[in-house]
Amino acid sequence: MIRHRITLSYEGSCYHGFQSQKNALAIQDVLEERLEKLYGRTVKVEAAGRTDAGVHARGQVVAFTAPPLIPTARLPAALNGLLPEDIVVLGAGQEKESFYPRRDARAKIYSYTVDNGPFPDVFWRRFAWHLPCSLDLEAMRAGAHYLAGRHDFKAFQASGSAVENTVRTIYALDIERRGSFITFLFRGDGFLYKMVRNITGTLVEVGQLKKEPGDIENILFAGDRRLAGETAPAKGLCLEKVFY
Amino acid sequence: MIRHRITLSYEGSCYHGFQSQKNALAIQDVLEERLEKLYGRTVKVEAAGRTDAGVHARGQVVAFTAPPLIPTARLPAALNGLLPEDIVVLGAGQEKESFYPRRDARAKIYSYTVDNGPFPDVFWRRFAWHLPCSLDLEAMRAGAHYLAGRHDFKAFQASGSAVENTVRTIYALDIERRGSFITFLFRGDGFLYKMVRNITGTLVEVGQLKKEPGDIENILFAGDRRLAGETAPAKGLCLEKVFY
Repeated sequence: MIRHRITLSYEGSCYHGFQSQKNALAIQDVLEERLEKLYGRTVKVEAAGRTDAGVHARGQVVAFTAPPLIPTARLPAALNGLLPEDIVVLGAGQEKESFYPRRDARAKIYSYTVDNGPFPDVFWRRFAWHLPCSLDLEAMRAGAHYLAGRHDFKAFQASGSAVENTVRTIYALDIERRGSFITFLFRGDGFLYKMVRNITGTLVEVGQLKKEPGDIENILFAGDRRLAGETAPAKGLCLEKVFY
Repeated sequence: MIRHRITLSYEGSCYHGFQSQKNALAIQDVLEERLEKLYGRTVKVEAAGRTDAGVHARGQVVAFTAPPLIPTARLPAALNGLLPEDIVVLGAGQEKESFYPRRDARAKIYSYTVDNGPFPDVFWRRFAWHLPCSLDLEAMRAGAHYLAGRHDFKAFQASGSAVENTVRTIYALDIERRGSFITFLFRGDGFLYKMVRNITGTLVEVGQLKKEPGDIENILFAGDRRLAGETAPAKGLCLEKVFY
């Protein structure tokens, strides 16, 4: 048996997230169904990030164990021939038997895209949050400054989450404008459930001058989800890369 | 009555082109239906370019005559509130009664996008032609060089077209690579039916070294559609801008 690692990109619009669940189609279901077709047996997959419904990926990492039927180099083409066009395998490699993409990930990059044009860009409507309001980039960057580093991000975790350790490290949070688009780029050792979308929603309120940059520090310190802003919509979020 | 001009962007994927036709939904149908809702009467529209099924637009220009019920500046928001999310009005202005966007257009810019990555980019699959083969950019540029200027483009017109005058001027045909994408940018005084897609298909054969750059000159001179390459798929084409 071989432990494979594949890099996956997908448009999440039509799926209820990566992970299988009852009564809803997840990317995992599609992937496992196609792998079963390819290998003629049940193949279970694990992913580095459990992206939510509507969230996209450019560099999701998925692992599975399968018999040595297909050379690793030919896996992307073989799988892409079976997968729907909104899921594309970009690369494949072999790993040790003990490799678990979620547990072993050292760092991840997520992007969040805001379409800040007066009217929504039709080509980006599935991949960006359209916010036609004025957004103060410098204020958002000042707010983001408080988030970089090792902190307890409890305030930005989805309410109701039961994770014990809510301390994470954000290595960098860069906010860039290109044309009418604003991209928030998060690099960190890991992210709590809905943390990127909650931070983005809160920074947008700073950009709208509804909150001050310094409020971010207070929210972080208080650890109270109710003080933070609204959760930014799923469609603007994309898992860009996972580091091992 | 006021003659309005609106600038329109749309994703053409779900429509059978701009112009109304039997038994198929066109962008014109949707637009006229919403205008009727807005004005409480039949409103007919004309467009600068009759984009085909699957072709997109960032700057289509459409004109219509309607009673002065809605201030021009508020037309985009009023219409966008009624239109589906794959059609977006970007701007509006007033014109002389005699304005016809197709007849009066002085120049147009079309873009054609090729996704030249090894695997299709899931986010661009509706807006780009995926061609994983090697493409020689310099060869394509050398071929494009023969097309710039005033020529009889009969060889690049869809077979069966009945246009009498097939002489057009291409002001510029720029080919640029950005990452794994190649964009063909056509600026001209007008384009024959499927001319941009036929030229792109032919230049791609030059890029694949199936044809030589000099063949473009011969095809142009012979005026024979059968000598040119295949028609590039609709989804890579976008009407970028119309000049008056």
